[in-house]
Amino acid sequence: MIDAAAVIMRLREIDARSGGRREAWRPVWQAEREALNEWARVLAPQARIERDRFANTWYLLDGASEETVLVGSHSDCVPGGGWLDGILGLAAGLGVLGAVASQSRRRDQPAQRTLAVVDWADEEGTRFGRSLLGSGAAAGTLTRDEFDGLRTADGIPAREVAARYGFDAGGLGTRSPRLARVVAALELHIEQGPRLAAAKRSLAAVSGCLGVRRHRLSFVGTAGHAGATPMAGRRDPVRAAARFIDRTAQVAADANGLATVGSLEAEPGLPTAVAAACRLSLDLRHARLDVLEQLDAGALDQARRCANETGCELHTTDLHRQDPITFDPRLLTAVQRVGPGEPLVSGPLHDSAALAQAGVPTAMLFVPSTGGISHTRSEDTPERDLRAGIEALWTLASEWLRGAS
Amino acid sequence: MIDAAAVIMRLREIDARSGGRREAWRPVWQAEREALNEWARVLAPQARIERDRFANTWYLLDGASEETVLVGSHSDCVPGGGWLDGILGLAAGLGVLGAVASQSRRRDQPAQRTLAVVDWADEEGTRFGRSLLGSGAAAGTLTRDEFDGLRTADGIPAREVAARYGFDAGGLGTRSPRLARVVAALELHIEQGPRLAAAKRSLAAVSGCLGVRRHRLSFVGTAGHAGATPMAGRRDPVRAAARFIDRTAQVAADANGLATVGSLEAEPGLPTAVAAACRLSLDLRHARLDVLEQLDAGALDQARRCANETGCELHTTDLHRQDPITFDPRLLTAVQRVGPGEPLVSGPLHDSAALAQAGVPTAMLFVPSTGGISHTRSEDTPERDLRAGIEALWTLASEWLRGAS
Repeated sequence: MIDAAAVIMRLREIDARSGGRREAWRPVWQAEREALNEWARVLAPQARIERDRFANTWYLLDGASEETVLVGSHSDCVPGGGWLDGILGLAAGLGVLGAVASQSRRRDQPAQRTLAVVDWADEEGTRFGRSLLGSGAAAGTLTRDEFDGLRTADGIPAREVAARYGFDAGGLGTRSPRLARVVAALELHIEQGPRLAAAKRSLAAVSGCLGVRRHRLSFVGTAGHAGATPMAGRRDPVRAAARFIDRTAQVAADANGLATVGSLEAEPGLPTAVAAACRLSLDLRHARLDVLEQLDAGALDQARRCANETGCELHTTDLHRQDPITFDPRLLTAVQRVGPGEPLVSGPLHDSAALAQAGVPTAMLFVPSTGGISHTRSEDTPERDLRAGIEALWTLASEWLRGAS
Repeated sequence: MIDAAAVIMRLREIDARSGGRREAWRPVWQAEREALNEWARVLAPQARIERDRFANTWYLLDGASEETVLVGSHSDCVPGGGWLDGILGLAAGLGVLGAVASQSRRRDQPAQRTLAVVDWADEEGTRFGRSLLGSGAAAGTLTRDEFDGLRTADGIPAREVAARYGFDAGGLGTRSPRLARVVAALELHIEQGPRLAAAKRSLAAVSGCLGVRRHRLSFVGTAGHAGATPMAGRRDPVRAAARFIDRTAQVAADANGLATVGSLEAEPGLPTAVAAACRLSLDLRHARLDVLEQLDAGALDQARRCANETGCELHTTDLHRQDPITFDPRLLTAVQRVGPGEPLVSGPLHDSAALAQAGVPTAMLFVPSTGGISHTRSEDTPERDLRAGIEALWTLASEWLRGAS
């Protein structure tokens, strides 16, 4: 049986040591990964610890069969992030590793299947602007071309930075052979949204991830003096953007989807002049591909209409596209036994999405996020829900390790 | 008779020498003012050139009476500004000075009234963020307290910078005695808007300046993950701002006023997160005080409503307030004889507004701005309209110098 309280204590220790400072490809992250290896060696002396060529750490406990149950998440966090995002799933995975190792020692025989606990490198993507880096590399969905285009905000190539941590760009573009042996990939994560907390649920199965269409929109008009340009003659890009934002939010809400304008800026930004341009980001999400595509086409059409109505020009650039991810139906049914109730669709992407895209049978478990907030130091989950999540992960993992499913 | 072609040629020379670089309180501005003095000495050897204690230059040609006809504008420009804003009215004034001086020499007698051509210091306000500095100082509307609070973007007190150019802050707060003798103050300026060009008019009288209410508005909501925060639970400040902007523009247009949001920014500005705050500037203008006040109250009320509808908080800061300026009715009638047709109300403020506020009988003449644009290098006015404006200024000034009105 897993010791959930010990896992939670360990999470608090990690947070005290490196909380909010474990951005990937930084010394603090590296040092914390060394400490996690130390912990794993104590929990499971017989486990092998391997760093693959994409800087992912694999904690391996051989079973009677090579068929593998994978439990993974990530140790990196956004700068100033909280004590649970990513590291919860990894620490719980190491808890599972310890519990399985003790059981095997006690019974003097390995589990039926092999256990792999994985710390995927750079889930957050804050350094290079590309999330799911390590898991995407292992899954083969991160191509060499895409990686070669990545840079830090200071313009340093991602390749140079990641190479110092053992990342080998030469191996990109094919799925790691190890994933072919995975019969079940499980991830415990915080929801990072308000739905479980609002419904007072401790736990939920996750059926997939929302699809995403992300664009940069620029409305371009004509600058003019705030006092000398009649309203009727204005080509005001701020008004075009304003109209677009309110209408698009309404359409997305009606379609049960999400539309977010998180970045918005008027240029040149003088209080006494009609702006020359207004730039914004648009992030659209939906669980169904057909509705997502409809929302996306509708939003771009709406943007053109708002530009026309205000005499502005519209320029658009695609920033990101990700089709909806559906997790493995058989595994989802198993997860729903430990996390009953309506499954959630995850808005944020997770390493599990990269695995699912690569054809690995994958499923996730969510525990609530207090107040729905994440990516800040005040991110939290009630301790009884953390315990429920960790124990559910254990139940699931040990069931699959026995080879019962 | 004034030589309008010579004035225009001189404007082109000035532009070649210092165009776009005559920001007030800079060496290039200072050097150009020296060159203007040189020109004035050639045009009117008998004129006195005096720098008052607020760094305004007075070119004085004594008449039989001390009653003064003032023709003024400004030699400074915004960085990267055009060849006409301000300097047109000043160069035309010096053209009037030259023509009156020749006439007096020819007739061997002075004009009935005294002529004062004035180069007001720092109309644009780009260094210290306060426009009409020299004219406001002379008019007594710029107080010592206000001036002492002004600084450059680098934090240097305005007092320190302006003192190097002879500005004496000790004299602030009272109207210059010279203004008491002014029976008519005239200013020729470019419109800086599109109305004259659109109506194919060469010239128009200006009946006053729009009143202004300017605020900074901050909508404050709750940041959240773009994929994990349901639309219904969002407190999205970008949506609050968007709704406010479109509705307010409509209300202002319906009231025949102006509403401009020139500065707009979402914070922290991440494409993948609902913003925590959205800040914007609101500039409202109207020719009538009662309507302006109604618009202002209505806009702030609308902002509160948009905040309420989206669950956001609203914070507002006053940036600027200026009641509408009405120019002298008798002088306006005279100006309408040389610039017939419906008079315009100026959106931008001008040095004439400071004089009118101080009780000086004041009026203005506008010539068209091609394409309605100003404050850029491409600012322009067709040469025949420039000539019409310069000649109309001459007609008016010489009529008032004769003491006929």
